[in-house]
Amino acid sequence: MNPIFADLPTTVFEVMSALARETGAVNLGQGFPDDPGPADVRAKAAEAVVEGWNQYPPMMGLPELRRAVAAHYAHWQGLDLDPEAEVMITSGATEALAGALMALIEPGDEVVLFEPMYDAYLPLVRRAGGVPRFVTLTPPHFRLTEEALAAAFSPRTKVVLLNNPLNPSATVFPDADLELLAGFCRRFDAVALCDEVWEHVVFDGRRHRPLMTYPGMRERTVKIGSAGKIFSLTGWKVGFVMAPAHLMRGLAKAHQFLTFTTPPNLQAAVAYGLAKDDAYYEGMRADFARARDRFAGGLKALGFSVLPSAGTYFLNVDIAPLAEGDDVAFCERLVRQHGVAAIPVSAFYAYQPVRTVVRFCFAKRDDTLDRALDRLRGLA
Amino acid sequence: MNPIFADLPTTVFEVMSALARETGAVNLGQGFPDDPGPADVRAKAAEAVVEGWNQYPPMMGLPELRRAVAAHYAHWQGLDLDPEAEVMITSGATEALAGALMALIEPGDEVVLFEPMYDAYLPLVRRAGGVPRFVTLTPPHFRLTEEALAAAFSPRTKVVLLNNPLNPSATVFPDADLELLAGFCRRFDAVALCDEVWEHVVFDGRRHRPLMTYPGMRERTVKIGSAGKIFSLTGWKVGFVMAPAHLMRGLAKAHQFLTFTTPPNLQAAVAYGLAKDDAYYEGMRADFARARDRFAGGLKALGFSVLPSAGTYFLNVDIAPLAEGDDVAFCERLVRQHGVAAIPVSAFYAYQPVRTVVRFCFAKRDDTLDRALDRLRGLA
Ligand SMILES: CSCCC(=O)C(=O)O
Ligand SMILES: CSCCC(=O)C(=O)O
Repeated sequence: MNPIFADLPTTVFEVMSALARETGAVNLGQGFPDDPGPADVRAKAAEAVVEGWNQYPPMMGLPELRRAVAAHYAHWQGLDLDPEAEVMITSGATEALAGALMALIEPGDEVVLFEPMYDAYLPLVRRAGGVPRFVTLTPPHFRLTEEALAAAFSPRTKVVLLNNPLNPSATVFPDADLELLAGFCRRFDAVALCDEVWEHVVFDGRRHRPLMTYPGMRERTVKIGSAGKIFSLTGWKVGFVMAPAHLMRGLAKAHQFLTFTTPPNLQAAVAYGLAKDDAYYEGMRADFARARDRFAGGLKALGFSVLPSAGTYFLNVDIAPLAEGDDVAFCERLVRQHGVAAIPVSAFYAYQPVRTVVRFCFAKRDDTLDRALDRLRGLA
Repeated sequence: MNPIFADLPTTVFEVMSALARETGAVNLGQGFPDDPGPADVRAKAAEAVVEGWNQYPPMMGLPELRRAVAAHYAHWQGLDLDPEAEVMITSGATEALAGALMALIEPGDEVVLFEPMYDAYLPLVRRAGGVPRFVTLTPPHFRLTEEALAAAFSPRTKVVLLNNPLNPSATVFPDADLELLAGFCRRFDAVALCDEVWEHVVFDGRRHRPLMTYPGMRERTVKIGSAGKIFSLTGWKVGFVMAPAHLMRGLAKAHQFLTFTTPPNLQAAVAYGLAKDDAYYEGMRADFARARDRFAGGLKALGFSVLPSAGTYFLNVDIAPLAEGDDVAFCERLVRQHGVAAIPVSAFYAYQPVRTVVRFCFAKRDDTLDRALDRLRGLA
């Protein structure tokens, strides 16, 4: 057994969801909405599975979906992508990320990682042979700094892996931070691997700006998007990869070997869904913002110290005054004694853990959030 | 870019399918049936996508599917698998294979590979850090021999990767060969990674016997199956992994990091489909056997030298008298000048290529096969 994978625990998201199922807790742990997703997109998938093609689609994805993805990003982010050479469909953003790391990294290459980070990043980097260099971001603002970047980048830096908006901290990196990072990428000739799956889930009038649009970044950025996040269908596992052709060639090989293709029926439905007008996206954002405000207001009223949430499905609370630096024990008590599943944010750190923050997913119906708030009464 | 992936050509299956689309050739290259798959299984997927759960399913797969897989293999192959600890669902057999290699191999471990082999095997082994040891199998019988195995196994052998029934050669390994291989696995304490996706597509009264059932192999075998092959729905990408719990722990981590989960709607439909009675499987085999006989008969009547086909969707012809040892050039001519796409079998060799065999997929409607035969007239 390769110890890089074998020695790891099961992901905290799975553990918490299983525990929530077992104990009947309100599950605000794993990040998924309880909305069933747009009925017309699901109907389209049903039609495709009954009447459409169920054999291997083209390896890079259905042509109509690749065109729809290119049009989508042209419209929302001003990107100019060639659907033939610069867009690929994968079996979710996780596969996109795994494949990109396998394709980009040679053993010994350094990879800059920002913690807190999604728990798959580090094992994938290690298994690809990469040497991690950590930049630790801390509450409440999780900002990038010149010193921290200078300490992490080196002439051996091959890839920098950024999640923006950032799960779990709900940060949307400001322009200044991205400028700074782009500068380091150019200076050290690094490829930016951008997990931007939360790009549409940003609040308060913000617009996500992809790192790919910063000067000099178009030729050195791999951007990852997710239909599961766009359509609140997290189980569909349809991801997008956007990259310049010279990088895409290697990424396509990784996809070829990791899953080869992605179900054509789900691809067809996503292609259909991406044609939705702006009102859909604005409505989704408004709904999530309302849920965020409801839950944040409720938490504050209970006396919790709530961190800002500029994007993603998540709200964090500072539990420093409550839990003596043990977010894991706090979450254990929360799920077992109080019936609310949440995620200890230390699970997102590998180097210099912050142990005073707990993450809640607010992408839930009002009554679910209210039930959770009820159970949290008296804990702050 | 990591050269192991980046330097490879696009898979021959994709290239040939694209060329067939472009030129209007009859596509007997890439292995997929033109049957649309069972209507009731597709209807079940449609129902699940409209009325069911579309968020993340449990990472290891839907419990009902894992139970259905265990029951399926108990019934057909006498396996006694614990659905909780010994069965996992993946996004196709390709992901299962990639994950298993990433999980089992440490850099420097030797991996025994049998050529001809599916073209993903070698790059995955290399990218996982494995050192390939080839056993070259040759037409017409593609048998394992004691000498060949003795030359390939060593104390550094960690994994042996076997495809049985074997694509492209359409071999179902006889008992004696599997006995021999099991003996080497036991002697060198190697894990057998068995790609058995063709297990149901065996002809002339044969029954596939999994390597896992040989003495001493239960504890050292990882078996991979495929719903796409069972239900002629190759685009669905729902795979199964069966392994003892001590190996499954590492395999599960690899799945967690490669795709995390597989669409729950397709999983639900596969669980439903696996309850089909024996008549479904017998009918599928009979249909494919009829197609094989029709196509083999036609080829022979045209003067081609046809190799035996004991299983899989494939028939091979010996083109030695026709093509001066260049199967690739022969296939190029076939698709461009004669309108039939096939696969040069040298694409499945990495070490000591056989260049005198061309593979045709016969899992097609009668009129498609007849059209191809028509176009092959005069070539033998
Ligand atoms: C893939 S399970 C985790 C889902 C998610 O994005 C999260 O909870 O952070
Ligand atoms: C995944 S494309 C190849 C399909 C197949 O099994 C084959 O043609 O050999």
